[in-house]
Amino acid sequence: MSDKISFSSDYTKGAHPNILKRLSETNFEQIDGYGTDEYCKSAAEKIKKLCNTPDADVFFLVGGTQTNQTIIDMLLKPYEGVAAARTGHVAAHEAGAIEFSGHKVLTLPSFPDSKELAAEEGKKPIYSDQVGKISAADLKALLDNFYGDDNHEHMVFPGAVYISHPTEYGTLYSKKELEEISVVCKEYQLPLFLDGARLGYGLMSKRTDVTIQDIARLVDVFYIGGTKVGALFGEAVVFTKVAPTKHPVPIIKQHGALLAKGWLLGLQFDTLFTDNLYMDISKNAIEMAQILRDNLESKGYQIYIDSPTNQQFIVMDNDKLAKLSEHVRYGFWEKYDGAHTVIRLATDWATTKEDIDTLMQYL
Amino acid sequence: MSDKISFSSDYTKGAHPNILKRLSETNFEQIDGYGTDEYCKSAAEKIKKLCNTPDADVFFLVGGTQTNQTIIDMLLKPYEGVAAARTGHVAAHEAGAIEFSGHKVLTLPSFPDSKELAAEEGKKPIYSDQVGKISAADLKALLDNFYGDDNHEHMVFPGAVYISHPTEYGTLYSKKELEEISVVCKEYQLPLFLDGARLGYGLMSKRTDVTIQDIARLVDVFYIGGTKVGALFGEAVVFTKVAPTKHPVPIIKQHGALLAKGWLLGLQFDTLFTDNLYMDISKNAIEMAQILRDNLESKGYQIYIDSPTNQQFIVMDNDKLAKLSEHVRYGFWEKYDGAHTVIRLATDWATTKEDIDTLMQYL
Amino acid sequence: MSDKISFSSDYTKGAHPNILKRLSETNFEQIDGYGTDEYCKSAAEKIKKLCNTPDADVFFLVGGTQTNQTIIDMLLKPYEGVAAARTGHVAAHEAGAIEFSGHKVLTLPSFPDSKELAAEEGKKPIYSDQVGKISAADLKALLDNFYGDDNHEHMVFPGAVYISHPTEYGTLYSKKELEEISVVCKEYQLPLFLDGARLGYGLMSKRTDVTIQDIARLVDVFYIGGTKVGALFGEAVVFTKVAPTKHPVPIIKQHGALLAKGWLLGLQFDTLFTDNLYMDISKNAIEMAQILRDNLESKGYQIYIDSPTNQQFIVMDNDKLAKLSEHVRYGFWEKYDGAHTVIRLATDWATTKEDIDTLMQYL
Amino acid sequence: MSDKISFSSDYTKGAHPNILKRLSETNFEQIDGYGTDEYCKSAAEKIKKLCNTPDADVFFLVGGTQTNQTIIDMLLKPYEGVAAARTGHVAAHEAGAIEFSGHKVLTLPSFPDSKELAAEEGKKPIYSDQVGKISAADLKALLDNFYGDDNHEHMVFPGAVYISHPTEYGTLYSKKELEEISVVCKEYQLPLFLDGARLGYGLMSKRTDVTIQDIARLVDVFYIGGTKVGALFGEAVVFTKVAPTKHPVPIIKQHGALLAKGWLLGLQFDTLFTDNLYMDISKNAIEMAQILRDNLESKGYQIYIDSPTNQQFIVMDNDKLAKLSEHVRYGFWEKYDGAHTVIRLATDWATTKEDIDTLMQYL
Repeated sequence: MSDKISFSSDYTKGAHPNILKRLSETNFEQIDGYGTDEYCKSAAEKIKKLCNTPDADVFFLVGGTQTNQTIIDMLLKPYEGVAAARTGHVAAHEAGAIEFSGHKVLTLPSFPDSKELAAEEGKKPIYSDQVGKISAADLKALLDNFYGDDNHEHMVFPGAVYISHPTEYGTLYSKKELEEISVVCKEYQLPLFLDGARLGYGLMSKRTDVTIQDIARLVDVFYIGGTKVGALFGEAVVFTKVAPTKHPVPIIKQHGALLAKGWLLGLQFDTLFTDNLYMDISKNAIEMAQILRDNLESKGYQIYIDSPTNQQFIVMDNDKLAKLSEHVRYGFWEKYDGAHTVIRLATDWATTKEDIDTLMQYL
Repeated sequence: MSDKISFSSDYTKGAHPNILKRLSETNFEQIDGYGTDEYCKSAAEKIKKLCNTPDADVFFLVGGTQTNQTIIDMLLKPYEGVAAARTGHVAAHEAGAIEFSGHKVLTLPSFPDSKELAAEEGKKPIYSDQVGKISAADLKALLDNFYGDDNHEHMVFPGAVYISHPTEYGTLYSKKELEEISVVCKEYQLPLFLDGARLGYGLMSKRTDVTIQDIARLVDVFYIGGTKVGALFGEAVVFTKVAPTKHPVPIIKQHGALLAKGWLLGLQFDTLFTDNLYMDISKNAIEMAQILRDNLESKGYQIYIDSPTNQQFIVMDNDKLAKLSEHVRYGFWEKYDGAHTVIRLATDWATTKEDIDTLMQYL
Repeated sequence: MSDKISFSSDYTKGAHPNILKRLSETNFEQIDGYGTDEYCKSAAEKIKKLCNTPDADVFFLVGGTQTNQTIIDMLLKPYEGVAAARTGHVAAHEAGAIEFSGHKVLTLPSFPDSKELAAEEGKKPIYSDQVGKISAADLKALLDNFYGDDNHEHMVFPGAVYISHPTEYGTLYSKKELEEISVVCKEYQLPLFLDGARLGYGLMSKRTDVTIQDIARLVDVFYIGGTKVGALFGEAVVFTKVAPTKHPVPIIKQHGALLAKGWLLGLQFDTLFTDNLYMDISKNAIEMAQILRDNLESKGYQIYIDSPTNQQFIVMDNDKLAKLSEHVRYGFWEKYDGAHTVIRLATDWATTKEDIDTLMQYL
Repeated sequence: MSDKISFSSDYTKGAHPNILKRLSETNFEQIDGYGTDEYCKSAAEKIKKLCNTPDADVFFLVGGTQTNQTIIDMLLKPYEGVAAARTGHVAAHEAGAIEFSGHKVLTLPSFPDSKELAAEEGKKPIYSDQVGKISAADLKALLDNFYGDDNHEHMVFPGAVYISHPTEYGTLYSKKELEEISVVCKEYQLPLFLDGARLGYGLMSKRTDVTIQDIARLVDVFYIGGTKVGALFGEAVVFTKVAPTKHPVPIIKQHGALLAKGWLLGLQFDTLFTDNLYMDISKNAIEMAQILRDNLESKGYQIYIDSPTNQQFIVMDNDKLAKLSEHVRYGFWEKYDGAHTVIRLATDWATTKEDIDTLMQYL
């Protein structure tokens, strides 16, 4: 629809061709609705096998905010809130979807806090791969403080913990960090929920020691993002041990999240989890991001966040940016200062070497 | 996935091939998200032109319950409820999605009430094309009663009126009936909302005098169902005069209903509203339903509801039904008596004459 | 504030003088807040002893709608609704407080349905002491129907049952009726909640075989109304077996229902449950209501509902009513027909024989 | 109920004797319910006259959290949140009451942030009368940032601003500070809401230049706290220009906040606003707090926050505190360090010089 090349996000294209092919092949089959079909079952089995969680409950929803809202509402009692990084998607970019379902987001410090502090102190911000993450220590401090409070029944009970991996800033938890967070959650008997809207791009990073089996072992529920990783839409929810409710269907329905033709979700994930497709196409995004980053660094661009995944953030001179925008669509991230802007450049499952070359022409 | 032929519902198949074709053609375009794209604009323009409502606000959501919930929440103040038939989808089959967003469904009598009355009186139920509909008189009685009440501030304020066309029972309002309801709504300044999840099958009925332009003229908001009429998924919402909020996006997002790849919706409706496709495929379902009904009547089956659209309801002997179920999937509707069951047989945009022949072999 | 005598309701006066006396005596004591004080404990102990429920959880809230909303929210899972008579307070007169907390009221037939039917048939309505009550049979039908439904996960789950005793129409359940309802609830494992906003007036009726111990035995939670029975305000909630939550305080607080000076509630109920005061003053209302009814009948007034408690309903000629209203405040109930109105006359804990005499002068 | 003297809070006693007297005098009057009575009207008139706001809407609610929840829900559209200090009552101590009604609290920095920063930097915290307050600059930054954001429709819209005066830490805004905040609110057309749960203690402070008329002029809605200032319970809500809804009653009812005997609230505020009583008894608390503070300082206690109102905060050695607790009830505030604790000592409308003397014996 536009003659500009776009690196603005990882949800600007359709789906992997295998998915379109299977949609065509099955188009006139008559399939039962609401996720009760064989494609959903098949996809769930493949995911359970891969995750090494035979007792898991797996089901499929349409999009990220919907999934976050529904899962968190399943996890929490009405008087409980969810702990999350101040910059977490559920805290900052869901238009109040969590509060709409009655729950507070209990915010934990995340790295940009330090940036603000630094700014107040007049120091330069230092960026690292900690951006967007929470620490086990901060989580423990929140919980100690809550349960240490004399009158904590007048406060919102922490009822679950939300992390994203990759984070909204493209950063990743190490296995050790995840384990530490998991230990704190177990100590306080709080379920740990991992938002994997871009999970593939985390798993295929060159700089991670975290596997999908690690995640399945360490968290209570997570989802495998499809919308941003090769599907038209869809997120695969995995309750690794057991679902928190006997009746997920009415809860999903009540959130307006029950897709009539649920098999469209099953079919897509069945395809993505056949012959390692999900991992393979995720890997492509990582490789393209590495090439992009090498190019950017060699041209002297200031890297804003040290992201090991498919999202890269750079600081651009505003004049240069104005010219760039004639040819390239990018993600506006935030103002850096009066003369500079932080932008996001995202690769995805379908990005090609030629796309990068085209982009670099204009950079 | 099954070797049985299915008439269980109208959402058992994928999409019209034109839609799949365009999904393939546009798969690697890079398109802006959240419904801000050109396909959504194009589809909206076509719908506005068809409806003869140049000032309408048109946008697209994923499914029926989601759409009902979101629209009703947009229409109502927090202390208001929506008036609907006792058998309306929002009253009976959405797992409490309306209450989840804080609103009561104020139920109006609908025809099955009379059946119950009749049953109490020991009389045979009489079925007609009034089943599932509300009457302007009942609506007016509710409103007169509410505003006539001495202390109505302790009751839920009626804030909008919901009707479905076709209803959940396949029946249709006449133009006169719609006009009468519209008059009552205007008298009390209540917005009128028409759920058109199966709108095409209503518009193409041989026994209707209601056009889409009539609907656009008489109601404040309606939606054109895609999920059940040739799309993979999707409902086109039309606020005929003006949207009730400056900011629909955060409300939609808050309901978990904002599709990242919004263009998938726009593209589908753009296709359906090109070259009269939506109406043509709707007409197919009606023609097949007529053939089905003729067949059923000639074989002496008891028609349960006099439905002029794609859903047909018959009373079946339970023994016969057990045999039928070996070859055919049908919709269980309700028990008729100890020895009989009401079933639904639905045709759709893709039903063929051969499908009907196959079905009739077993009936 | 008015020179008219009032029989409009049972919440038009302050509190029993013993309560005012104790408020004065304790005014400058320094008491811990939020219901953690000794007066609350003492009142709870007295109620538990009276009810013969040593393991009950007892706490105190401010008003009826608040209590209904909070208790029902404690009982239900988010996707559940509460079954209640169509005329129940939670269904009809709480401005959507139950829906505000996300739950549907699943309405059951109650006697006025039959009146409407009768009206449609052109027959005279027949009023009885069944008005406002639900039947075990109707409740069982709702539950059988729900769990018999093929796809009940798209409907609201019945999660609790609400009854009022006396009902909003002054009528009472017999012990047999309560037992039958309790049996159905146990069969389906639904908690039974009894709204006792006017409980004293039910217990002291001459025409009841239901004791407070029966109620405590048959229901899972009930409340003892104070606002209408001698207190300034307040309702004593009794979870007869065990509270449904480890943490009632944050739920109460979240509903804006946690009174800072909680002892004001404890002190009032401690007074009411000392020396049988609650029952004695309830008995006064019943005796005065009997005298009133005898007078009304002897003067030939048409009794509208056969109420055995403190609320009496009569049919009045509109002209006569206009005259009456110059001297007497009454409760408007509903239109009877074009020339007549149903009014409510309520006695209370403080009504005197002289009040009745004054009223009868004008009737 | 306890032989210890208590300085734990300002809601440990009943009501000013004038109030109890009027409750007794009017006990057997028959008064209309739900706040429609003459006492409510009279109290509202007195308040409007005092505030110099003839067009104000004044009504009465029971408690602070209930009032905050109800007012904020009246002010906001469903997709809006309320901006408040991170330490504000609505953000920290209402068990999620704001989120329960669907809204996010958008937190602004407040002084303890600086403490945390200081702690991280290894510096001593510096306490001042800024604790618990927001600044116009921080508010403006939040709003500029929100409206400057490229995609703010995915964020929660700021829809109102909440401040408390005195704050939860006993501190006060200056007139200049209030004016600056008011200017920012007007610029962005956001209503400004002032929580005056302890308003009298703010108005009577020796160190304030803010009058009730200033508040009524600068804010859109505020409430005059009764629960902590001489009433048994009750808060007087003042919409200074016009209420944000035609129908406050159903909203109040829906929150379970409509008191049946509403005149109990009117009567109390009518008493408090007769002959300057509210101000006079507030002044007593301030005078006693000054004596207390003078005593504390002369004994060398470390003042924790520089509070000019009735709440005083000191740092206590834990051993000394253990001894103190044998004779005195105080408010635990927070841990200071391993060996010290911050406690709150609150005076109130009924505190006497003798109470202070008794307390100082143990300090």
